[in-house]
Amino acid sequence: MSKGITSRVENYSQWYNELVVRAGLAENSGVRGSMVIKPYGYAIWEKMRDQLDKMFKETGHENAYFPLFIPKSYFSKEASHVDGFAKECAVVTHYRLKTDANNQIVVDEDAKLEEELIVRPTSETIIWSTYKNWIQSYRDLPILINQWANVVRWEMRTRLFLRTSEFLWQEGHTAHSTAQEAMAETRQMLDIYAEFAENWLALPVIKGAKSASERFAGALETLSIEAMMQDGKALQSGTSHFLGQNFAKAFDVKFLTKEGKQEYVWASSWGVSTRLMGALIMAHSDDKGLVLPPKLAPIHVVIVPIYKNTGELEKISAAVKIMMTELKAKGITVKFDDNDNNRPGFKFAEYELKGVPVRLAMGMRDLEAGNVELVRRDTLEKQVVKQVGIAEYIEKLLIEIQQNIYSKAHKHREANTHKVDTYAEFKQIIESENGGFVLAHWDGTPETEEKIKEETKATIRCIPFDSPEEDGVCMYSGKPSKQRVLFAKAY
Amino acid sequence: MSKGITSRVENYSQWYNELVVRAGLAENSGVRGSMVIKPYGYAIWEKMRDQLDKMFKETGHENAYFPLFIPKSYFSKEASHVDGFAKECAVVTHYRLKTDANNQIVVDEDAKLEEELIVRPTSETIIWSTYKNWIQSYRDLPILINQWANVVRWEMRTRLFLRTSEFLWQEGHTAHSTAQEAMAETRQMLDIYAEFAENWLALPVIKGAKSASERFAGALETLSIEAMMQDGKALQSGTSHFLGQNFAKAFDVKFLTKEGKQEYVWASSWGVSTRLMGALIMAHSDDKGLVLPPKLAPIHVVIVPIYKNTGELEKISAAVKIMMTELKAKGITVKFDDNDNNRPGFKFAEYELKGVPVRLAMGMRDLEAGNVELVRRDTLEKQVVKQVGIAEYIEKLLIEIQQNIYSKAHKHREANTHKVDTYAEFKQIIESENGGFVLAHWDGTPETEEKIKEETKATIRCIPFDSPEEDGVCMYSGKPSKQRVLFAKAY
Repeated sequence: MSKGITSRVENYSQWYNELVVRAGLAENSGVRGSMVIKPYGYAIWEKMRDQLDKMFKETGHENAYFPLFIPKSYFSKEASHVDGFAKECAVVTHYRLKTDANNQIVVDEDAKLEEELIVRPTSETIIWSTYKNWIQSYRDLPILINQWANVVRWEMRTRLFLRTSEFLWQEGHTAHSTAQEAMAETRQMLDIYAEFAENWLALPVIKGAKSASERFAGALETLSIEAMMQDGKALQSGTSHFLGQNFAKAFDVKFLTKEGKQEYVWASSWGVSTRLMGALIMAHSDDKGLVLPPKLAPIHVVIVPIYKNTGELEKISAAVKIMMTELKAKGITVKFDDNDNNRPGFKFAEYELKGVPVRLAMGMRDLEAGNVELVRRDTLEKQVVKQVGIAEYIEKLLIEIQQNIYSKAHKHREANTHKVDTYAEFKQIIESENGGFVLAHWDGTPETEEKIKEETKATIRCIPFDSPEEDGVCMYSGKPSKQRVLFAKAY
Repeated sequence: MSKGITSRVENYSQWYNELVVRAGLAENSGVRGSMVIKPYGYAIWEKMRDQLDKMFKETGHENAYFPLFIPKSYFSKEASHVDGFAKECAVVTHYRLKTDANNQIVVDEDAKLEEELIVRPTSETIIWSTYKNWIQSYRDLPILINQWANVVRWEMRTRLFLRTSEFLWQEGHTAHSTAQEAMAETRQMLDIYAEFAENWLALPVIKGAKSASERFAGALETLSIEAMMQDGKALQSGTSHFLGQNFAKAFDVKFLTKEGKQEYVWASSWGVSTRLMGALIMAHSDDKGLVLPPKLAPIHVVIVPIYKNTGELEKISAAVKIMMTELKAKGITVKFDDNDNNRPGFKFAEYELKGVPVRLAMGMRDLEAGNVELVRRDTLEKQVVKQVGIAEYIEKLLIEIQQNIYSKAHKHREANTHKVDTYAEFKQIIESENGGFVLAHWDGTPETEEKIKEETKATIRCIPFDSPEEDGVCMYSGKPSKQRVLFAKAY
């Protein structure tokens, strides 16, 4: 049996890195800052993508595809956008290589582009330059489009899934005839992200609005969902932006209203990325490996035979096949691992590492008694169950596991969320080992926000929608405040 | 009603371009050589992707994702590959922009990459540099991985879907312990492409091997499927490559055999792209617009009400809703177009343009008689059918339409495929308006192939698998030949 991974207590960060690699989710590539998403990791991402795609389509969105490259000048058109996105980016300057006199492959200086192309860090500019031609009248609105794509943001310090120079994501870009409709869309998509996070990732999230300084470059309002990781830090897991008329103005996109007037179009954009993989891993996994919510697990059930010889294996296999047929009929994905090269103990550790929700083991004694040994990954509890009715049993158990994983994450968050009224107390909590979320009063100024960030590394994650109005004073400045906001250190 | 599109006879090339844009499939973007795939076009591509993905998974393949950027030096490792792919490509040289003294956004020369990055034109090099770490022993083999991705090959003259600088595709990259197994995989994937082309695209294809000069750069053998378009030209619709040990040697990927020896790994790669959209459009469509095989049509049935007032529309809508429920229950996608802004004639033309396989129209007289008017897109035949049992009727009809579109394309190909023994006859056919496929003897030399290409623009599309051995002489050189090969002008 191979050596286990570093424990969370020992080194949380190292635990995460080892887990991602050892569970076969992703690894660093030979290209600085870019990762390889391995088949097991990609299978989880595909499940996320398919479910989100379904939810987008159910709410009237269509997919499309826009160019990877964006001319440099497009970024200059929206003033705040350029500062946010055009700076740390991959720049294509040439379109040809050649073999030089020394037989080396070099850039062909004759093939220099007149205008540099930026590898898209996000697609507002290229999409709004396109929407200009698609929108003439109110009849062309709304446009509800989503794109699944790769994007590049140059990063100096990268971490698998959490921060990589290239990542996969979806970006929705919608166009509307009124501000109200665009804002409703912005909120609807945040709600969809929250529903997905809670029901699929089993991840409780806090919905809210970003402070002005944390807004998307070019947005009038940025909404986000924030989740707590096991180390008490926050991970922003999805954002939805109300862009006002900023991009419509930058790209001169007007429409004829019903009343016959020319007006600028209203916009939203929203996205989630392979960062969700990081959230999934860090929220639920333990020192033995991944703990996957059944709804996103590529394999729901693994069956390991325990046998001394081929004869025994054959008898066990026959019983396993019956169980497999029943499980598959219920849409449960099942793998029978009868690989003779590895011992059961090795296999158990391997599937714990990979987070398979349910493990069944069957030896001759089980077979004869009509039993099977079952271990659920989330609790590691062992039980003996009857082979008869196993599919119904596991079907219910998977639902229970999904709920239990959510409950555990929810309990953890509740236990580590604190209402705080003094800056001293705030610092004590933020700097403690468990970290956590702090709900505190803030005077609403970027100056205070910046000071707190400088001094503690904690940021305002969001102004939660469900934070009630109450009179208070800013824990930092003592100025009046009407509402608590959510502070935390963040990934 | 808006003006129709240019007819095929008038100008085939213009017909294609107009059709792609007017049917809402794709359009040129502000980025030279890059297209925007619009929602209706992307919906067709999604159907292709989903079906291919299913077929790949059924044959044991898994998806993964590798980096977009490839270090320049990777290309130099496989000698023939670099000539084929590293030349016309997008080169990333910098990772930052800055605002200069004149407040212009310019490339930051301080952020020059030590080694240039190539935007992937294909991923053999980055993937084999990764496989090196994944493969130690025969137990790690085979590796059967596919990737859905965007790729970039710089093109000076581009056409929507057929040749664009950026396109979407899938690329399979497999690793095997024997040449036989890698070759069997190469062939299996070609067969899957052919099955997909024939059963889904309704496109008859000829399977065969490429001549040496048409092989993929780095392959020992390239197999392809070749389809005939309505103008008699060939369109290569999928390729599968046997790479031998070339990439294993270039990236030093060895494995321990069962016998305890170190050997280089054997490889295949295979791909189809958004080019298939071009094939689909050019093979079946007519002067009124797209003709979509039902299996790839985003909408199977459109229903247009014919009414004089709201009261009539309400009565018709009630009957339509019943039909829609029945159709949807059979997995048939149906759209009811009760948009009051457009007249029925406009709608008819619009859905013909978009290639919706079945159109239903219902007026008050139809309603009262329990009838509905049905027009199938492939033949434009009009018939009156009973509302009762409409779902069963259309379910069968969609199968018939799928078959009919295939048969039509097959007949067209057969009528325009010629066995030819003299070069004079060859030139006459190739240069004729209908063009077509020519089966002729060839002496097997690249010199003859090149001469024929120079003189006629026709190329050897493939050496068909089903071309029988027969004694003959090369139509060009008079040297002996054992088999006819397939010549055509090609896209």
